[in-house]
Amino acid sequence: MSYSLYDATVPLAQNALKALTSILKKGEAAPNGASLLNARIHPDMLPLTFQVKMVTDTTTKLVARLTGTEPHAWEGEIETYADCYARIAKAEEILASASKDVINQRQNETVNVGMGSLGTFAMSGPNYVNGYVLPNIFFHLSTAYNILRKEGVPLGKADYITSFIGEFLTNKV
Amino acid sequence: MSYSLYDATVPLAQNALKALTSILKKGEAAPNGASLLNARIHPDMLPLTFQVKMVTDTTTKLVARLTGTEPHAWEGEIETYADCYARIAKAEEILASASKDVINQRQNETVNVGMGSLGTFAMSGPNYVNGYVLPNIFFHLSTAYNILRKEGVPLGKADYITSFIGEFLTNKV
Repeated sequence: MSYSLYDATVPLAQNALKALTSILKKGEAAPNGASLLNARIHPDMLPLTFQVKMVTDTTTKLVARLTGTEPHAWEGEIETYADCYARIAKAEEILASASKDVINQRQNETVNVGMGSLGTFAMSGPNYVNGYVLPNIFFHLSTAYNILRKEGVPLGKADYITSFIGEFLTNKV
Repeated sequence: MSYSLYDATVPLAQNALKALTSILKKGEAAPNGASLLNARIHPDMLPLTFQVKMVTDTTTKLVARLTGTEPHAWEGEIETYADCYARIAKAEEILASASKDVINQRQNETVNVGMGSLGTFAMSGPNYVNGYVLPNIFFHLSTAYNILRKEGVPLGKADYITSFIGEFLTNKV
């Protein structure tokens, strides 16, 4: 069985959303939980809600771009934990609908990637995945973790990594 | 051209090392640069030097495990920026030596992954990559970025993302 572009995107994105949920649940349970949604690493960095926005945007846009469909149009802002979980649930639904065959058959189609004020750029599927999708999903997920750790939430590395590795730890040698 | 297990590992790891270098150079140039090597997100988290250790360990062990060779045995501790750059240079050398054909031909060989006090686990190459390699490389790289941002080093997202996306931004639409 060969590793494919689908393998490098959809399952990783699904596990990133699971890890994000684990991290947010611990933030929500903290004594100062509600205020943590606006916490940030440094005053000029973006808050926890922005990290949730970026993880859910990137995981759903990858499905649209790699399958040649329109991206989901999100409505409303993220203001509460309920908003976070609703957005994650929608992203999980979109990822579950992504066809492995379509993604792998279309892997060398050109995708257009908007980079904010820099403009929009055309690139191949693999270049989009390695240049944009994976670095962004993991950056914003890890930053969510670090924001909550900085605020004293008792997260451990397991809250991050278990969603990725947990199912593979069945064969101890 | 199909995306392969090599595509999901070696080029991403090489770009992660480039991004780590960009981030460390800005830390070194800060007025309090030397002290930043011991900075951390929270008192009970591990310092910047540990993040460098984990990125270089993970990027080099992936080559060993996916090619069926012995991992590089690092000597000495990471105490200075020079130590960081030397370690990154060695990791880059090891990644450059990795054979795409060998990694892709061996992708379904079982690899043994040590998880500290949890023990050692046997898994397939793709499960090792998605469960351990990519989540760990990006987590420790992003945490290095966040540690320096927390300490006020004027990093921007470009210092992180350019090593991954820069070469693909040639075709503006």
